Amino acid sequence: MDFFAVVDSLRAIRRFRSEPVPDALIVRILAAASRAPSARGAEPWWFVVVRDPQRRAAISERYRRAWETGQDMTMRADADRDISTSPHYARMMQAAAHLASDLAEAPVLIVCCLDHRLLGPIAGPEGLRSPVAAYASVFPAVQNLLLAARALGIGSTLTTLHTLFGPELKTLLDIPPSVEVVAIVPLGYPRDRFGPTRRKPVEAIAFRDRWGVPFTA
Amino acid sequence: MDFFAVVDSLRAIRRFRSEPVPDALIVRILAAASRAPSARGAEPWWFVVVRDPQRRAAISERYRRAWETGQDMTMRADADRDISTSPHYARMMQAAAHLASDLAEAPVLIVCCLDHRLLGPIAGPEGLRSPVAAYASVFPAVQNLLLAARALGIGSTLTTLHTLFGPELKTLLDIPPSVEVVAIVPLGYPRDRFGPTRRKPVEAIAFRDRWGVPFTA
Repeated sequence: MDFFAVVDSLRAIRRFRSEPVPDALIVRILAAASRAPSARGAEPWWFVVVRDPQRRAAISERYRRAWETGQDMTMRADADRDISTSPHYARMMQAAAHLASDLAEAPVLIVCCLDHRLLGPIAGPEGLRSPVAAYASVFPAVQNLLLAARALGIGSTLTTLHTLFGPELKTLLDIPPSVEVVAIVPLGYPRDRFGPTRRKPVEAIAFRDRWGVPFTA
Repeated sequence: MDFFAVVDSLRAIRRFRSEPVPDALIVRILAAASRAPSARGAEPWWFVVVRDPQRRAAISERYRRAWETGQDMTMRADADRDISTSPHYARMMQAAAHLASDLAEAPVLIVCCLDHRLLGPIAGPEGLRSPVAAYASVFPAVQNLLLAARALGIGSTLTTLHTLFGPELKTLLDIPPSVEVVAIVPLGYPRDRFGPTRRKPVEAIAFRDRWGVPFTA
């Protein structure tokens, strides 16, 4: 597939068909993920590919409860008031609620990890010295993963709700203390369709030379 | 260009030719950046496109000093000892030192920003409530930017050294208090060549179902 055709049609897929995703495709997707940049070229990432139905169900159950907790907090604080009337919001929330009701509908969950031991001076004994530099060394790999899946016709979405059940998740997958889960990416053949996606125009997100001067070609 | 040809040949470019990068290409690159996912679909990013020679020189001067400070700290603590004998290290550091000696050799600097006001419940008055969810909403866009540049034959590299001179950088570009610079990406036609890149094999970075069981196809 053409590069821009992939980028422009990458949409969050939150409803999955049950057909398995072949191992060979998972390998190609993870090889693409690993082509991302990282601080010191240290490749400080790990990916746990979860297909096992019992482990998927256990993650799914915790994800569902985290979604409910998150929704409860958001509702009480009216924390989405800035965005809840925008055109995409209702549809996005409906799809996200579906995903949360059964994350294990996806035949594969990729648990994406950042290994603090591979961050050198960016990590210290007390935690991350530079969160920016640390997460800049893992989310580009996660984005490559999403894009590569799309290029192969496989749907995905980047989720971070696991931050509400991080310790349980690590126990469930035997993840060592110095490794941080940064995302769970469900993968599967889509029931929804891929893009095109709608975004703000470039002149609404870019400036020329300094803040406040719109960038137009 | 084919998607996988782009991903597999994206290499950090740290030496640039002086030819200008046309505005139309910058617009295409930023449109691709904006196709990334973000929490709540809020698109919480901004990009300041710096071409102005005086502003580029001012950023470059501070970047050079930050590099020297960083190198000094790394040397004293021997903080790269885990990686300094790996095959890529010497070449990478030489190229990074060249870049730091004159960041303004790149005809364009893209200053990538995360707007905390657009993060809803992820940001609080005391700072980020979930750094993972916050940076997961901007580094995928930065990776799209790097990939799109590569697809158009334009070199780039993701840098985070600005964290050592964040307040000065924000003053220089009139960036508001609630907006955080997360990366500076120099762009230009490459003097170095693009990939292929070398990475650990997938079985060395991926597990099946739980930590410790290598994933092989």
